[in-house]
Amino acid sequence: MSSLDSLPTPAALIDLDRLEANCAWMSRRFSELGVALRPHVKTHKIPAIARLQVLGHDAGVTVSTLAEARAFTEAGFDDLCWALPLPPARADEALDLAGQVSLCLLVDHPRTAGLLEQAAAQAGRKVRVRLELDCGYGRTGVRASDPGSLALARQLRDSPNLDFEGLLTHAGQAYGARDIGQIGQIAALETRAAVGFSQALRASGIEVRVVSTGSTPTCRRGRDFQGVTEVRPGNYALFDLHQAAIGSCEVDEIALEVLASVIGVYEDRVVLDAGALALSKDAGASHAGLRGYGMVLDLQRRELPLELVSLSQEHGIAQGDPGDLQPGDRVRILPNHSCLVTALHPVVWGVREGRVVESWSPVRGW
Amino acid sequence: MSSLDSLPTPAALIDLDRLEANCAWMSRRFSELGVALRPHVKTHKIPAIARLQVLGHDAGVTVSTLAEARAFTEAGFDDLCWALPLPPARADEALDLAGQVSLCLLVDHPRTAGLLEQAAAQAGRKVRVRLELDCGYGRTGVRASDPGSLALARQLRDSPNLDFEGLLTHAGQAYGARDIGQIGQIAALETRAAVGFSQALRASGIEVRVVSTGSTPTCRRGRDFQGVTEVRPGNYALFDLHQAAIGSCEVDEIALEVLASVIGVYEDRVVLDAGALALSKDAGASHAGLRGYGMVLDLQRRELPLELVSLSQEHGIAQGDPGDLQPGDRVRILPNHSCLVTALHPVVWGVREGRVVESWSPVRGW
Repeated sequence: MSSLDSLPTPAALIDLDRLEANCAWMSRRFSELGVALRPHVKTHKIPAIARLQVLGHDAGVTVSTLAEARAFTEAGFDDLCWALPLPPARADEALDLAGQVSLCLLVDHPRTAGLLEQAAAQAGRKVRVRLELDCGYGRTGVRASDPGSLALARQLRDSPNLDFEGLLTHAGQAYGARDIGQIGQIAALETRAAVGFSQALRASGIEVRVVSTGSTPTCRRGRDFQGVTEVRPGNYALFDLHQAAIGSCEVDEIALEVLASVIGVYEDRVVLDAGALALSKDAGASHAGLRGYGMVLDLQRRELPLELVSLSQEHGIAQGDPGDLQPGDRVRILPNHSCLVTALHPVVWGVREGRVVESWSPVRGW
Repeated sequence: MSSLDSLPTPAALIDLDRLEANCAWMSRRFSELGVALRPHVKTHKIPAIARLQVLGHDAGVTVSTLAEARAFTEAGFDDLCWALPLPPARADEALDLAGQVSLCLLVDHPRTAGLLEQAAAQAGRKVRVRLELDCGYGRTGVRASDPGSLALARQLRDSPNLDFEGLLTHAGQAYGARDIGQIGQIAALETRAAVGFSQALRASGIEVRVVSTGSTPTCRRGRDFQGVTEVRPGNYALFDLHQAAIGSCEVDEIALEVLASVIGVYEDRVVLDAGALALSKDAGASHAGLRGYGMVLDLQRRELPLELVSLSQEHGIAQGDPGDLQPGDRVRILPNHSCLVTALHPVVWGVREGRVVESWSPVRGW
C-alpha cells in the first residue's frame, strides 16, 4: 500500500514478522506442553490477529468486553470466554449472544450467580460459567481459603441453567515482577493455587473440567503447568516495554510501534505529534526501571537519546539532545503498554519490510 | 430516551445543566471583558457542545487535530484554529481544508514556516498563520528572549502565501498550580508575556492583529487580559477533578461522569466495570492532593468511602469499605481528566434531571 514516509502520523504500526513469530512461539510452547492456548484478544481487538494466535490449535479466544465478543462472533470465532466478572445488567445481552456462539461467562459472587441463573432460566438457555479464583493478585476472584468459595462452586454446579466448567485465575501480580526469576515464582504460585483449589473442589465432589490460568509473563517464563488445562495470555502477540522491563520478552520482539513526526525542536527537547491519545498515559513498569512514556527510535530502530517525559493530549515531549532532528522527521515509539495503545487508534497498520501491507480497525466500546 | 438504570456501563455522561452553566459563564465573562472567546473543542470533540460554547458570540473554535478540523467544518463551523505546531507532512491536507473554511495554522520553527510557504505557493492558496510563543510552559513555542523569534515573525510576515495574524500562547503550567492564587499569578504572566512580545514585534514594524492566550484555569481565575484579543480555554465546558483540585472550579460544576457498575465486592474493595479504557490512566493533579483515578459517588452524588487506586484495562479497583454495595449496583465516577475520557468513548450521553436525552459520538483519530 504505502511506505512509512507517506503514512499520516501518529500511526500505530504492527510489524508482521515479529507478530507472527510471537504468536508461533506461544502456540508451539503450549502445544508441546499439551495445554490449550485460549489467547486473550484485548491487546489488539482485531480478528485477523487472533487468527494468527489460534493457528493450528484453535481452542477459542478470551475477550474483555461484550463488544469484542459480538465482533469476534461476527468474524467467525465460535468459542469465547468473557474473562471479566459478569456485570449483572449485561446478563441478558450475554445470553442472547450465547444463543449464537459458545460463550463462557465468569462469576465470583453468589448474587451474580443467582441473577445469571434467573436470567438463563428466563431465556430458556443454558450457559457455560467459570468461577474466578484470586491467586494473589487481589483484583477479582474468590480466595481458596474462604469457606464461601466452595459454597459458590456448589451453587454454580447446582444451578440447572449454568454449565459449571471449572476455574479461571490470572496472576496479574506478574506485571509487578522485576525479573525472570520473580516471574517464574509467580507462575509456579499461579499453577499451585489453581490446581490446589481444583483438587479441593474435586475432593468435595464437584467436577472441574477446566483449570485456566495465565498471563503473558507467566506463560512466557513459567515452567510448571502440571494440572492446568488452559492458558490465556494475550499481550505476547505484540509485547511492549513493560514486558521487556520485567523480562517477559526482548525489546526487539516488540511488534507494536507508534510512528510519530517531530513538530517542534528546542535546545533541550523535541516535541512529537504523539501525545496521550496516541500512546496512553500508562507510565508502565517504573518498579522495573522503565522511565517515561515510551522509547524513541529512529526509522532504522536505533534508540535516540530522548526521554519521553511528558504527554499532553496531542503533544509528546521528548527531553534530551535533539541532535540533527528537524520538524517533519519521523521516529518510532515503542509503547509502555500495547493494550491501551491499539485501543486508542481508529486504524492499526500492518507493516512488512518497511511497507504498509494491511490495515485493521480494533473493536471499540463495551 | 432512557434512565441511568438502563444504560449499559461503562457510560460517559454529560450533565446538560452543568454544561450549559459552564459555557454561559465563560461566554459572559469574555463578552464583558471585550475579548474574543475561541473555545478549544478537544475536551469533547462534539460539534453540538461547541455550539453552546460559542452561543451569542461566535468567534470560531480551536481544534487539536486535523480530524477535528474536518469534522467541525462538515458540521458548519467556518473559522478554525489548529493549535498544534503544524506537522509539515500534513501541510497539503491543511491547505486543502483551508480552501473550504477559514483555517489558521500554528508555526514555531523556520523550517516549518518555509515548508508551509512552499506548499501554499504550490496550492495557490494563502493561509492564516500564527506564531506560537512559549510563556513559560516549556512545551512548544518560541521564547521571546531568543533573537530567532523576531526573525521567524518577520519570515512569516514576509512569506507571500502566509497571512501572519499574530501570536498564540498557552500557559499550560497553570495545571501545575496549587490554588487560585497561583493560577492568578500564572495568568498575569501569560498576559504579560504575550502582550510584551506583541509590543516588541510591533516596535519592529511587524503588525500583530491577534494576541491569543488562555487555558481553562487562567481564563477562569485570571484577572488581567489587557492587550489580549482572544482566549482559547476548552476544558471549562466539562471541568474535572484536576481543575477542582487546583481551584479552577468547584466539584459540583464538573459536568462529565462515568457511570459504572459494581462487578466484584470484597472485604477491602469493590471492583467496577470502568477501567483504563473508560477513565484513562491520567493520574491527575497529585501535586494538588488528588489521589487515585477518579472520585466514586453513588447515584445521588454522595461521595463513597472508596479510593480508585488502580485501573486495569476493564477493571477499576476501588479500595475501601464496600458498605452495602452489591454486584450490579451503579456508581458515578468523576474523572481526573475529562479530555482524555470523552475521547475514549464511542458514545457520550447527555443527561438532564436523571434522564438520558441526547447522545453524541466524539470525533476520533488524526
